[in-house]
Amino acid sequence: MTDDRADDPYLIISSDTHAGLPTAEYRPYLDPAYREAFDGFLAKQEAMAEARRKFGLENEEFAEEWFGEHEEELRAGWDASRRDRELDADGVVGEVIFPDADAVAAGTQAPFGAGLGMIGSDYDPELALAGARAHNRWLAELCRESPERRRGVIVAPIVGDVAGAVAEIRRAHADGLRGGVMIPSIWGHGQAPYHDACYDPVWATCAELGLPVHTHVGAAPRDELGAHLGLYITEVTWWSARPLWFLIWTGVFERHPDLRFGVTEAGVWWAGNLLWQMDVAFDREHGTRKLASFGEHMRMRPSEYFDRNCFLGMSTPKRRELSHRYEVGVGNLLWGNDFPHPEGTWPHTREWLVHAFSDIPVDETRAMLGLSAAANYGFDVARLRPHAERIGPRPSDLGQDKADTSVWDRARETGRHWLTGPDVPAVVGAARKEGAARKEGAARKEGAARKEGAARKEGTR
Amino acid sequence: MTDDRADDPYLIISSDTHAGLPTAEYRPYLDPAYREAFDGFLAKQEAMAEARRKFGLENEEFAEEWFGEHEEELRAGWDASRRDRELDADGVVGEVIFPDADAVAAGTQAPFGAGLGMIGSDYDPELALAGARAHNRWLAELCRESPERRRGVIVAPIVGDVAGAVAEIRRAHADGLRGGVMIPSIWGHGQAPYHDACYDPVWATCAELGLPVHTHVGAAPRDELGAHLGLYITEVTWWSARPLWFLIWTGVFERHPDLRFGVTEAGVWWAGNLLWQMDVAFDREHGTRKLASFGEHMRMRPSEYFDRNCFLGMSTPKRRELSHRYEVGVGNLLWGNDFPHPEGTWPHTREWLVHAFSDIPVDETRAMLGLSAAANYGFDVARLRPHAERIGPRPSDLGQDKADTSVWDRARETGRHWLTGPDVPAVVGAARKEGAARKEGAARKEGAARKEGAARKEGTR
Repeated sequence: MTDDRADDPYLIISSDTHAGLPTAEYRPYLDPAYREAFDGFLAKQEAMAEARRKFGLENEEFAEEWFGEHEEELRAGWDASRRDRELDADGVVGEVIFPDADAVAAGTQAPFGAGLGMIGSDYDPELALAGARAHNRWLAELCRESPERRRGVIVAPIVGDVAGAVAEIRRAHADGLRGGVMIPSIWGHGQAPYHDACYDPVWATCAELGLPVHTHVGAAPRDELGAHLGLYITEVTWWSARPLWFLIWTGVFERHPDLRFGVTEAGVWWAGNLLWQMDVAFDREHGTRKLASFGEHMRMRPSEYFDRNCFLGMSTPKRRELSHRYEVGVGNLLWGNDFPHPEGTWPHTREWLVHAFSDIPVDETRAMLGLSAAANYGFDVARLRPHAERIGPRPSDLGQDKADTSVWDRARETGRHWLTGPDVPAVVGAARKEGAARKEGAARKEGAARKEGAARKEGTR
Repeated sequence: MTDDRADDPYLIISSDTHAGLPTAEYRPYLDPAYREAFDGFLAKQEAMAEARRKFGLENEEFAEEWFGEHEEELRAGWDASRRDRELDADGVVGEVIFPDADAVAAGTQAPFGAGLGMIGSDYDPELALAGARAHNRWLAELCRESPERRRGVIVAPIVGDVAGAVAEIRRAHADGLRGGVMIPSIWGHGQAPYHDACYDPVWATCAELGLPVHTHVGAAPRDELGAHLGLYITEVTWWSARPLWFLIWTGVFERHPDLRFGVTEAGVWWAGNLLWQMDVAFDREHGTRKLASFGEHMRMRPSEYFDRNCFLGMSTPKRRELSHRYEVGVGNLLWGNDFPHPEGTWPHTREWLVHAFSDIPVDETRAMLGLSAAANYGFDVARLRPHAERIGPRPSDLGQDKADTSVWDRARETGRHWLTGPDVPAVVGAARKEGAARKEGAARKEGAARKEGAARKEGTR
């Protein structure tokens, strides 16, 4: 890139958005044989909503405000043209679409539990596959509108019926879905874990078709956690990230060197420590001398498999998390706005980008905000560029033209300190002393910032 | 402390040592009714050893070298006078004693699985309690030799028979054990998790008797992990730390404000992120607005419960981990040598202390190496001081008299950045650029450093 293009607009791809029909509307997408069972599923929705509220996953006051303020805009969860308008307002040109548009009241669930919360032992494999097919069929339709901007993720409940799931992956791929595959984060007690060879057909198929495999946060063992919301919050990341080290340590990436695996919306904060811990163990540092080898199939360090085969759909990173990016790998981190979930940055992505990225070097920002996702999901950058010219914020819009990016020099030079030499990581503490993140959190809690943001957004249209 | 005492010897307490009889010798300590069952347990030892080897937990080559080099010294696992000699050589005046002295070939197991690897569903509650009683009886005898230097940890398989475990805790406490209580890290599938009120008698009893409750690394769901050693290494820390957030998030420390809980030998590396993640969620930052409250019982931030009620028996911290000490809390971190396990620092603790602490401020070092443990476990510092004068290394022996501790100033000022203002942590990268840790690891892998160290140790006796 030449200097005079330094302030070109960002080509922003959200590697984490959600779409889904209002639950009852999935009916015509279901194979007819399952429609009666679906009526029974619908009849149980109120009981399931009550269970969610009991667990604390729904704050009724917040829900009322959220739906009251955003009723029209939330139709973007299933309406393509409305969706393009919302993405435009957020400055986002492309999206990778996961299920479950409504993460507040669970009003857009694919049938039979085929969604973010999949746990292998919680669903009936035949029904879950039927529900996944219904969602995938509908999603392929959605992606045929503004196709250059959309990559739909195939929902694949692989635990329980591997062959059925593989068939569905091939069917959905042939139907046009190119956003990869989402598998359950959690297999149930007594079910085959993801190191089991029974899943090889899944990995082989996804590698062959160029479909990244994902887990996405959502599932946790609620029976065990009880009605303790804090336990859910603390553990949900771990349960969705867990398949990552199952694949790395057990040779799956040796058997399937072209397989790509990503963990979406689980953040970044745990990843640096994980890579450190795995590498140091693998290098048979003092603490693991007494153990046997990690297996003939481990031909590289764990972090090398991570770099070659894995990525993190980090969604909306905290500043703390971005400060770890040289350990985790800038190129492994894909931003997302989690649209249209309230824990995401929509509809205030432009302001959040300023907050998160104002002192991050432009080339790194370009990679994390869009170019890495373009490569990972096969977006056609040339076709997206005109959208970026039209709606993309520029580095100067993020304040980056005035930034002193040298605060990061040492962290960048250090990288993975356990491989480069230093005995402790380098994290700069140069940045904002004013406690921006906390204040912002407090303000948003009041709903003030959100309303301000809405006003500003109207002003920019 | 006045300046002229600045180079006083360190009073070093290992908050993580291990003792246990050669397995068969536990027989006379068992209630007679269980001795026949114990013969059956002994008969299965070879099969269990084979399973350990298959899992990769035992490296036969290493084991041969380890036992070959240390045959005599390893009698310290159960012989008190030999034990004092080894502690002296390491510069350690006091110890907190967990079970399972032999972590290489599992040759010193308490009967019926009552040890580090306890999983609630893996043992027979009645037998495990019988085994725990046998170990606790023997341990109380051991602690009656040089009692000022020893705090024995009561093994308490609380999952399955709470009342029986409480009775054993009271019995063992009355018998003199004062090192707290070790509970299983893992309850089994379908068993009551530690947020369940059924465990309140355990927490109440331990709070009443002033016994800290511990988990200690060791257990992991091996059936699920299969013969994949890497999975064990990556997960074992998480499984032993997990009860910590179960107690914090579910009000156990509100019901039992005097209860202390520690996680031993799981390191420090995960703790800063955990506190950050819990606090930020609790403060209802943007990402958790949509959720209900975390419960009426949460009257403080999670990190405040951590500071009031919890500690980490960090054992042998890596430099990376020590760099997180201002986030985790210097006063919450208790050093240990993991004696006599090969992944610990024995018999080279003096050299390891130089490596880990040479640039750490002396007052912090005093706390982490001993004074915090003295307070936590009720050691009589006045009685230990003469031992420290005799064997304790001085700050100058660790190179601290020449250290520039100002490299840590910013990290110390920043502390928990999410509470103090800055948006990213401050971790200095000032320290050793030469890759000391890695080289050391490589050297130790060859066994070279260990042998050199042994020679040096002989020289200092």
